[in-house]
Amino acid sequence: MSHSHSSEIVQCDTIIKADEIVTQDETRRIIQDGGIAILNGYICGVGTFAEIESSFSSTQKLDLSGKIVLPGLINAHTHLPMTLFRGMADDLPLMEWLEKHIWPVERQLTQELLKVGAQVGCAELIRTGCTAFLNGYFHEQVTGDIAESSGIRAVLGEGFFSFPSPMFATANDCWEQNRKLKEYFNNSDLVRTAVTPHAVFTVKPDELQGSFELAEQLQIPWQIHLAESAVETNQCLKRYGLRPVKLLDTLGLLCKRTVLHHCVDITDAEIELLAENDVCVVHNPVSNLKLCSGIAPIQKMLDVGITVGLGTDGASSNNQLNLFREMAFAALLGKIRHRDASAIGAQTVLDMATRNSAICLGWPELGQIAINHPADLVALDISSPNLLPMYSSVSHLAYAATGMEVSMTMVAGKILYRDGNFTTISIKDLNNEVLEAKKWILRMIDTQKKSKKT
Amino acid sequence: MSHSHSSEIVQCDTIIKADEIVTQDETRRIIQDGGIAILNGYICGVGTFAEIESSFSSTQKLDLSGKIVLPGLINAHTHLPMTLFRGMADDLPLMEWLEKHIWPVERQLTQELLKVGAQVGCAELIRTGCTAFLNGYFHEQVTGDIAESSGIRAVLGEGFFSFPSPMFATANDCWEQNRKLKEYFNNSDLVRTAVTPHAVFTVKPDELQGSFELAEQLQIPWQIHLAESAVETNQCLKRYGLRPVKLLDTLGLLCKRTVLHHCVDITDAEIELLAENDVCVVHNPVSNLKLCSGIAPIQKMLDVGITVGLGTDGASSNNQLNLFREMAFAALLGKIRHRDASAIGAQTVLDMATRNSAICLGWPELGQIAINHPADLVALDISSPNLLPMYSSVSHLAYAATGMEVSMTMVAGKILYRDGNFTTISIKDLNNEVLEAKKWILRMIDTQKKSKKT
Repeated sequence: MSHSHSSEIVQCDTIIKADEIVTQDETRRIIQDGGIAILNGYICGVGTFAEIESSFSSTQKLDLSGKIVLPGLINAHTHLPMTLFRGMADDLPLMEWLEKHIWPVERQLTQELLKVGAQVGCAELIRTGCTAFLNGYFHEQVTGDIAESSGIRAVLGEGFFSFPSPMFATANDCWEQNRKLKEYFNNSDLVRTAVTPHAVFTVKPDELQGSFELAEQLQIPWQIHLAESAVETNQCLKRYGLRPVKLLDTLGLLCKRTVLHHCVDITDAEIELLAENDVCVVHNPVSNLKLCSGIAPIQKMLDVGITVGLGTDGASSNNQLNLFREMAFAALLGKIRHRDASAIGAQTVLDMATRNSAICLGWPELGQIAINHPADLVALDISSPNLLPMYSSVSHLAYAATGMEVSMTMVAGKILYRDGNFTTISIKDLNNEVLEAKKWILRMIDTQKKSKKT
Repeated sequence: MSHSHSSEIVQCDTIIKADEIVTQDETRRIIQDGGIAILNGYICGVGTFAEIESSFSSTQKLDLSGKIVLPGLINAHTHLPMTLFRGMADDLPLMEWLEKHIWPVERQLTQELLKVGAQVGCAELIRTGCTAFLNGYFHEQVTGDIAESSGIRAVLGEGFFSFPSPMFATANDCWEQNRKLKEYFNNSDLVRTAVTPHAVFTVKPDELQGSFELAEQLQIPWQIHLAESAVETNQCLKRYGLRPVKLLDTLGLLCKRTVLHHCVDITDAEIELLAENDVCVVHNPVSNLKLCSGIAPIQKMLDVGITVGLGTDGASSNNQLNLFREMAFAALLGKIRHRDASAIGAQTVLDMATRNSAICLGWPELGQIAINHPADLVALDISSPNLLPMYSSVSHLAYAATGMEVSMTMVAGKILYRDGNFTTISIKDLNNEVLEAKKWILRMIDTQKKSKKT
C-alpha cells in the first residue's frame, strides 16, 4: 500500500471502495478489494480498502462494490464535431469518402452545428469510459468549451490545410489562431492545445515546417495524419519522390513532439526511423478497416520501443468513439496482421488505451492510478452477463466488455456519469439539438444535389 | 400496410408502437412510425402504427417510442456452455488453445457446471438482442432445457469426436443420443436438434457418413466445423490427400442440409462447389481472428449465391456472444479481405445475422418481421449518445450499436428482457452460481497442474 503520509490519519475528499483496481501503474498492479483516496482531484492513496480506510478519513464515500475500477481511457485520435456525420456515408474508400461526402458538408458547417457534434461526442466518450481525447478539427475553441463544460480533458488543435479551408486564408492566420487558442485555454485544468496540420497531401512542405516551428515555440504536441493508405504514399511519391515518413524526416519533423496518426502503409525501415526519433504513433484500427486503408503493423512498432496510443478517429469513419471496441479490434487484428495469436495481447491494448495514449497527448500523468496522478477513473459493472465469469479483469477489458458496462466516469475527482445519469450533460436536450442539426444537414445535402443538377 | 384480414377490426394479443421498424422482409422495408400486431406468438400485422391501430384491437399495448424494432438476431454458431471458459485462456493459436487449455478442463465438466455456462450464455444472448442460436456441445439436453426455461430458441446437436470423448464410447451411442434428444424436444416450440460431428480432423470418414445418414433420417441439419485454419487443411491433406471441402464432397456430404462453420482456408473452386450444392456457411469473424485462423472470403461466397449466416463461436474464443459486435467485425473485415471499402456493407451483415442465419438453423421463418412469421423481436434505444444522430438505422445496427442499447427482447410474443430486467432469469442467482462454478474450475486446473508436477 502507498499513500502520501504514513503514521497519522489523513483527511481527503473521497474514498472509493471497489472489488478490484486495475492500476495500470509501473508494475501493472491489480488490487483485490481495493481502495482509492482522492484529494483536490488527485489520487492521494491507493491500496486495499482496509489499508485506505485505516489511513484516510473523508467526507464522501463512493461504494463501487460489484465494480472494477480502472484509469479513464484516453482517445488519442478523433475529430469530435464529426460525430454529426456518424453513419451519413458508409462503405466507401478514404479519398471518395472525404472528397464526395465529408468535405462538401464540412465547408458549410456553422459553429452552432459543430458544438452539437462535439457535445454528442463528449457524451459518448464519457458514457464509454473515456476521460481525455486528442482532437483535430476547425473552430477548436468550440470543442474546447464543450469539453470544459462536459468536464472531460482535451488536447485540441486547429486543423490546417494548404488549399483554401473553411477557416484560414493563409498559414499565418492558422498559426495566429493556434496562439490565441492556447492563450484562451491557458488557465484551464482540462483543455490544452496541439498544432495540427492535416496531412502531407494537403499541407505544403514549408507550411509543415512552419507549423512545427510553432509547436516548438508553444512547447505543445505536433500531430498529423501520416501514412494512412497506399493512395497517400503514391501521391507523396509522385509529388516529392519520397514516401510520407521519409518526407517528414527530410523536413526535420520527426521527434519526441511528433504524433503520427495511422501509420498503416509503413516499412520496417520507417518503423526503425520512428523509434530512433522517439515519435509517438496512434493506432486507429476500425477507421483503417472501414476506409479500407489496411492494418497497421503495431506489434513491430511496439517491439522496437515506439509508444503506440489508441484512437477511434472520427465517428464518421468508425462509427463509434468507443475505446473498449477499439481495444478489441486492436488486439484481434494484431494477431492476423502478424500471423501470431499471441501478438497484441490484452495487457498490451489496455496499455495503449491508457498509459501510451497519455504520452501521445503530451500528458503522461494521465492513464494510471497512482499517488499524485489525476483522479480520472472509470468503474465497470462486472455483474453484467457478458462479463461472467471473470478470470482476468484485463482480459475482460480487452475482449469481453462493450463499454456500456461503465457505471461511473470521473475526471479530476468529479463524477461526470453514474448509473445512467450524466451530471454535466442533458441527454434529452442533446437529442433535440441533434435532431435539428440532422435536419439542417439533410436540407443542405439536398440543396447541393439540386444545384449540381441545374 | 399488410395484415391477415382487411375490412374489419381484428382482435390480437399485443400491438407494438415504435419509431421505426426494420422489417428485414423480402423487400427490406423500413417503416417510420411503425406498428406490429401479435397473436399467439405470431405476427399478424405490420405497417404504420396508424394502420395497425385502425385494423387491430388488443388487450396489451407496447409503447416503444424512441426505439427501433428489428427481428431478433440469430447466432448461427456457438457452444453455449463454454461461456464458463470466457477469458480463461487468451492470445493462443487454435490447436494449442484446444489441446492445452480447453479440452483438459472440458473432460471434467459436470452437467451442473454445463448448466451454469449455458445459463450465462442465454442471459448474454437475450441481453444483446439474440432470439435464436445454433449450438454444438455435450449434454445438449441440459442446454436445451436452459434455452426452454429462458424462453430463447435453440437448435442443438450432441458434439461427436471419434477419439474417446467425455460422452460416447462408440459412434452408435452418439447417434442413439441424438435420436433421444430429438424425441425429448419433439413437443417444444423453442428447441430443435441438429447432427453435429466436430470436424474432419476429429471424426473418421465412415463416421462422418454415418452421422450424415442420421441427419437424413431425422430430417434435421447436419453441421460441422470446416476449413477453419491452414493447420486443419494440412492435417487433412496429410491424412486423406484431400483438402477439407474436397473430402466432404468425396464422401457425398455437401448438400442443402449441410452447415459449415468457418470456411476460412478455402479456394475459389471450393466456394463454387459449395454454391453448386446449396451448402450453408456460418461466418465467425472474431473467433477466426482470435485464434489466428484468418479472414474468410465472405463477399466471394455471397457473390456466387451461398447463404452465409453469422455466429460468435463460443465465448471462450471471442469473448462475447454479441451479434452486434460480430456484425461490425464482419462488415469491417470484409473490406480488408477483399480490398474494397464497399464489400460486405451494412445491409449485408444485417441480412447475415437475421435472414441468412435463420436458413442456417433450418428455420427460415425466423429473422424477419412479416405476417405469419414468429414474433421474435428486438427494440433498440436510439437516444443513446452513441447512436446520435441517426441517418440510417441499418448503418447504426451494423456499425454504431454495441448491443447494449437493446431495451427489449421478445421471443414468440413473450418479453424475455426489458429495460434492465430479465423476466425468465435471475441475474443475482446467476452471479452466485457462476462464482461457485469458477472456483470449481480454478481448483480443477490447480489439481491438474499439481498432478503433472509429481
